[in-house]
Amino acid sequence: MPKKIRLGILGGGGDSLIGILHRVASQINDNYEIVGAVFNPDHEQSIAFAKEIDIPTNRIYKDFDTLIEEELKLPEDERIQVCSVQTPNFLHFPMAKKLLDNGFHVICEKPMTMNYEEAKILEEAHQKSGKVFALTHTYTGYPMVRQMREMIKAGALGKIHKVDARYYQGWINTIIHDKEKRSSVWRLDPTKAGISSCMGDIGVHAFNLVEFTTGLKIKSLLCDFNYLYEDNQMDVDGTVLVRMDDHVKGVIRSSQVATGEENGLAIAIYGEKGAFRWEQEKPNFLYKMSDTEPLQVYKPGHAYNSELSLSGTKLPPGHPEGIFDSMANIYLGAAKAIRGEKYNDGEFPTMKDGVRGMNFIESTVASHKKGNVWIDLD
Amino acid sequence: MPKKIRLGILGGGGDSLIGILHRVASQINDNYEIVGAVFNPDHEQSIAFAKEIDIPTNRIYKDFDTLIEEELKLPEDERIQVCSVQTPNFLHFPMAKKLLDNGFHVICEKPMTMNYEEAKILEEAHQKSGKVFALTHTYTGYPMVRQMREMIKAGALGKIHKVDARYYQGWINTIIHDKEKRSSVWRLDPTKAGISSCMGDIGVHAFNLVEFTTGLKIKSLLCDFNYLYEDNQMDVDGTVLVRMDDHVKGVIRSSQVATGEENGLAIAIYGEKGAFRWEQEKPNFLYKMSDTEPLQVYKPGHAYNSELSLSGTKLPPGHPEGIFDSMANIYLGAAKAIRGEKYNDGEFPTMKDGVRGMNFIESTVASHKKGNVWIDLD
Amino acid sequence: MPKKIRLGILGGGGDSLIGILHRVASQINDNYEIVGAVFNPDHEQSIAFAKEIDIPTNRIYKDFDTLIEEELKLPEDERIQVCSVQTPNFLHFPMAKKLLDNGFHVICEKPMTMNYEEAKILEEAHQKSGKVFALTHTYTGYPMVRQMREMIKAGALGKIHKVDARYYQGWINTIIHDKEKRSSVWRLDPTKAGISSCMGDIGVHAFNLVEFTTGLKIKSLLCDFNYLYEDNQMDVDGTVLVRMDDHVKGVIRSSQVATGEENGLAIAIYGEKGAFRWEQEKPNFLYKMSDTEPLQVYKPGHAYNSELSLSGTKLPPGHPEGIFDSMANIYLGAAKAIRGEKYNDGEFPTMKDGVRGMNFIESTVASHKKGNVWIDLD
Amino acid sequence: MPKKIRLGILGGGGDSLIGILHRVASQINDNYEIVGAVFNPDHEQSIAFAKEIDIPTNRIYKDFDTLIEEELKLPEDERIQVCSVQTPNFLHFPMAKKLLDNGFHVICEKPMTMNYEEAKILEEAHQKSGKVFALTHTYTGYPMVRQMREMIKAGALGKIHKVDARYYQGWINTIIHDKEKRSSVWRLDPTKAGISSCMGDIGVHAFNLVEFTTGLKIKSLLCDFNYLYEDNQMDVDGTVLVRMDDHVKGVIRSSQVATGEENGLAIAIYGEKGAFRWEQEKPNFLYKMSDTEPLQVYKPGHAYNSELSLSGTKLPPGHPEGIFDSMANIYLGAAKAIRGEKYNDGEFPTMKDGVRGMNFIESTVASHKKGNVWIDLD
Repeated sequence: MPKKIRLGILGGGGDSLIGILHRVASQINDNYEIVGAVFNPDHEQSIAFAKEIDIPTNRIYKDFDTLIEEELKLPEDERIQVCSVQTPNFLHFPMAKKLLDNGFHVICEKPMTMNYEEAKILEEAHQKSGKVFALTHTYTGYPMVRQMREMIKAGALGKIHKVDARYYQGWINTIIHDKEKRSSVWRLDPTKAGISSCMGDIGVHAFNLVEFTTGLKIKSLLCDFNYLYEDNQMDVDGTVLVRMDDHVKGVIRSSQVATGEENGLAIAIYGEKGAFRWEQEKPNFLYKMSDTEPLQVYKPGHAYNSELSLSGTKLPPGHPEGIFDSMANIYLGAAKAIRGEKYNDGEFPTMKDGVRGMNFIESTVASHKKGNVWIDLD
Repeated sequence: MPKKIRLGILGGGGDSLIGILHRVASQINDNYEIVGAVFNPDHEQSIAFAKEIDIPTNRIYKDFDTLIEEELKLPEDERIQVCSVQTPNFLHFPMAKKLLDNGFHVICEKPMTMNYEEAKILEEAHQKSGKVFALTHTYTGYPMVRQMREMIKAGALGKIHKVDARYYQGWINTIIHDKEKRSSVWRLDPTKAGISSCMGDIGVHAFNLVEFTTGLKIKSLLCDFNYLYEDNQMDVDGTVLVRMDDHVKGVIRSSQVATGEENGLAIAIYGEKGAFRWEQEKPNFLYKMSDTEPLQVYKPGHAYNSELSLSGTKLPPGHPEGIFDSMANIYLGAAKAIRGEKYNDGEFPTMKDGVRGMNFIESTVASHKKGNVWIDLD
Repeated sequence: MPKKIRLGILGGGGDSLIGILHRVASQINDNYEIVGAVFNPDHEQSIAFAKEIDIPTNRIYKDFDTLIEEELKLPEDERIQVCSVQTPNFLHFPMAKKLLDNGFHVICEKPMTMNYEEAKILEEAHQKSGKVFALTHTYTGYPMVRQMREMIKAGALGKIHKVDARYYQGWINTIIHDKEKRSSVWRLDPTKAGISSCMGDIGVHAFNLVEFTTGLKIKSLLCDFNYLYEDNQMDVDGTVLVRMDDHVKGVIRSSQVATGEENGLAIAIYGEKGAFRWEQEKPNFLYKMSDTEPLQVYKPGHAYNSELSLSGTKLPPGHPEGIFDSMANIYLGAAKAIRGEKYNDGEFPTMKDGVRGMNFIESTVASHKKGNVWIDLD
Repeated sequence: MPKKIRLGILGGGGDSLIGILHRVASQINDNYEIVGAVFNPDHEQSIAFAKEIDIPTNRIYKDFDTLIEEELKLPEDERIQVCSVQTPNFLHFPMAKKLLDNGFHVICEKPMTMNYEEAKILEEAHQKSGKVFALTHTYTGYPMVRQMREMIKAGALGKIHKVDARYYQGWINTIIHDKEKRSSVWRLDPTKAGISSCMGDIGVHAFNLVEFTTGLKIKSLLCDFNYLYEDNQMDVDGTVLVRMDDHVKGVIRSSQVATGEENGLAIAIYGEKGAFRWEQEKPNFLYKMSDTEPLQVYKPGHAYNSELSLSGTKLPPGHPEGIFDSMANIYLGAAKAIRGEKYNDGEFPTMKDGVRGMNFIESTVASHKKGNVWIDLD
């Protein structure tokens, strides 16, 4: 019976979406406990946030270097074991490197570094360290993505000959079409955001999914970006032709100006014997296609899935994982009531609902037993 | 900045799905801390489970009555504030009642009681207690269910004249068609499972959803059950005609023998000016229909949603809440690696993936800048 | 090599949708030729319509009785062989009966008669006549409906234990909520429209589909109608509980006030070994469900389909039958141009499109052959 | 009241799918009458086919040149007005040219010619002729494709900045992976099939749809083909980067080895104010996307559609055009019965179904009127 892993957090304070995502994820399997953090460059805000989420403030450090220094003074069985790096992109590399160099495991947000050069340096540091380094390409955690990988590995598609992946979003439309906005936002400033906007932020997820699911490597590529305006220096859209093997080809499409698209990550993999299609926005449906057989739809949690896929499923078939969140919303409503805060009466079901429910159930039984007659509810 | 609410757990130990669901949900918004529990009637197993999920064992009590007794001895600001009741159905009523009578808030799994009589007794106890009682009709926590409720309240459908809800599952097929199984399983034994199987377990969710979203009350009903076999005494399927008002009618359908259905909870509400359709298995899509306008599809997280709906959304549009779980799977894989346990190399992305990603991004930039030429990856 | 069958038409003139549907359908397989008709009670309009669709006017009769009389004078190998009855409902029975009594085959629109009494009389007339009588329950012609029937007959679902069918429309909303309209329209006048509006017009299609696909008979039923207003005498909505066999039950739902629904005919059939779901608005997708296997989606035209299903498919898989109509729209545009009538330049592709297409194809070849370089189109 | 247009057919005999498609399409709007043809290079087979579909054989000519010669001898008001060219690809150009040169209108299957050179020659002949030339890019006939075009023209998307179209099929997998088959089939022989397989056959449809719906011209392109095997000389897959304007870009993808895809023609068009998505396999659903508003789904036949779209709709909303074919299947079954041929008893509904239906309807009325009680059917 293992103790929880002692987790440190870098960044992710306040309303940070990525912060919530990592915090919830670290708790879901009862494996991690947050013991230290630098949530925010402002130490006071960092402390305040720790209080808000009610974790001890004694190991909320004033900055990253202090965290390293102080934690190293602690005995090994109290010390942070792994740090989760959720800071702005340019800090990923220096933090991850220093963590590895000082013997910490690392869970790191994407992009891992600002460029390929740094990536190779980090790789070397990682090899020397002997520590675990996990990069949160989150989409590889979906049960049906894992099922694709395992079935392909087991030969379900035969030799693969074509891949087609995309990640389409539309949100940058609200910025790009306004000359002032597009010239002032840090996202489109190469000195702050790095060498690529669209490909670096989302295209790389599609790339990762292609290699993760097929087990093949992309060997060469040809790319065309779109900047939309002369005065914009960052790609907001791009298409990449890829070659994976002498005669295996594919295309990776990525856009931040695909109006109305939200998180349109999707992949199709075609092989001699069959094909797969999967879409992130409906993650529980994996389509297996064939030229001669009926289309099959795989869903999580079923015994027909692979071990890797099932290891990522906690719920019986037919319950989308959103049910965790739906239940959490009810707990949230109850928390407001318990604390005497204001809440909407739709935020959690109450005694009234329980009484109504029993009235309903008994009435159905009575109606049936009396020969299908009308019964009034109270 | 509030302290976390002190939560006690009754039941939900081991691999209990309902236990995982409540535990995750209670943590998602950083509002609750588990401080005490009776996870299991066997005290040793209860202690073992507490260690497994690494919570302090000093307040893991040998039974429910001891929990009440001991907690009452603690000063109020240390005492469990709310208990989550996740035990077998027949214990919901006595536990919830004793908790309320002793001044604890209650979060209670469904069904609230074994019958209507108990429900009314509990209602009285609740009124006397002045405490919060939350019943986990989980589906009311979905952002799009809440959106339906708010839009209907605001008049989006005009006067409602027809409702149609169903909850179809197929899992009891694996039991019901085998004479031996159906006569021995506790689920189909009325002395253990109560007065109703299908209607009590799932039909009541459809009923609850109808009243929750429409704000209308069902006044009378006519029901026909199906037992499938002469020797089976519990309903495994049923259809309920309902009347909500002089001229408002509807139907609630419920089945545990709807072969191949998983958690087919769905609702359609028709009004003078428009209609809604929603399905639990694709919870992020709410369909608004009209006789004269294009069909509209509402999705969570958008500014066009109501406050109640948005209060239940932590992610930007297009990320299904399954992303929490997907990320959790990656944290789980990393935990295995950190602990030196065996893991599948698909369980989390590593340094290799980070290096590949940077190689990809730089190559796309190079290809574009050189005039859309082929670039080899390393 | 058969001659075309000589077809007479009763009703269906002008813009009658049912007229177009029957006319197109009779031509699709090159089996029928329209040789005579009474398109309209007004003889002049009947003649005018015959000219409009360019069929000979010499056998456009002034009324139904004249048609019978005159056709009987013709030698048998010139005489109308079969009449298609597309008149208002109350004429179906007398026309069909007289046709059969006089030795004509009959293709008859639904409802067959105004009541059960007439139906039994017609049945007797039919038996005496030895002629073919086809009732156009159109939905039984869909390839995937036929596939369901054949697979069920072959045992694909095992013993069936539950059926659920519906036909939901919303169009009567535009009438029913206006007191004046609902009291004046013939559709809601029982003296003109017969004993039932919703169940007679559409519910019966759902009923027919249940019996057609399962091969089982409904033995008894319990029904609840909704009239919505006190002063309305015709059902505009209804739910029917059905019993097909001791322990086989189901539900048939039908509505004309299901706001926003168009032709929402759907059926689900659940059996011991599997289940089917099918929806008329997406007729080319047949879902086969199982408790343990991946969902399967059957589509028309594949070799895996039954003979009966394939006999109704003229196109390769993936072409919805709407392609006939799409092509027809292009022929229509060309007809306007040929006749020198006004047309929208989107109505048919022209030489310009052909030239552009060849320019495109040659450019793709050139780009590829030259090493994936940019090629300008003319 | 116009006479039907006199139509000649070249090719399309026997079981030719394209023949059936054109024949049905030409009849759907009652505008054309087939008066002459060369269905087949073998004159006897041509005659036999004419008899099979029961059209007069006196103008079934022995070859194309004879058809021209003989028709020109007829008075103009009897002469074929328009010829539909459905022959193998290499004949399209010479036939179309000779037809135009001799004063006939032409409806021509795609590809229009074997290469761009021929296309320009034909264009000149067309201009001289003053005749109508319609190229059957069938997909432009779909009501929702037309609706896209009209709404884009009216500014619904604002300035367009990105297009993404694809046509994916998988059928050539059954040939390409077998060395013998791929070296012998005419489709993959450039001397017989022309310069391109995949792009020429289907990619060009995607190209056409892009220009048809957006009203923009593609100015340059960069293309990469895939041949899959060294010994194969024809493209079976290809991706095309396109530039439509300085800053408007897009991608056209086309494949015949996209395993399991049937007729996967789809298009997405993204503009400043909104976007459209449409898929050929579900042609009645047009998705209009926005970054800030709920997704809208447009369907045919509604009054909110444009005139061009409505001109291509003959049915009320909710009836897929497959209903024509479904009805045709019933007429086909009846034809077999009328002719005394063998038929499956599922091929058309009969008197029995009519009697059952009336029994059902009357029983529902009786059940309701008696207070929702059980009624037995006969």
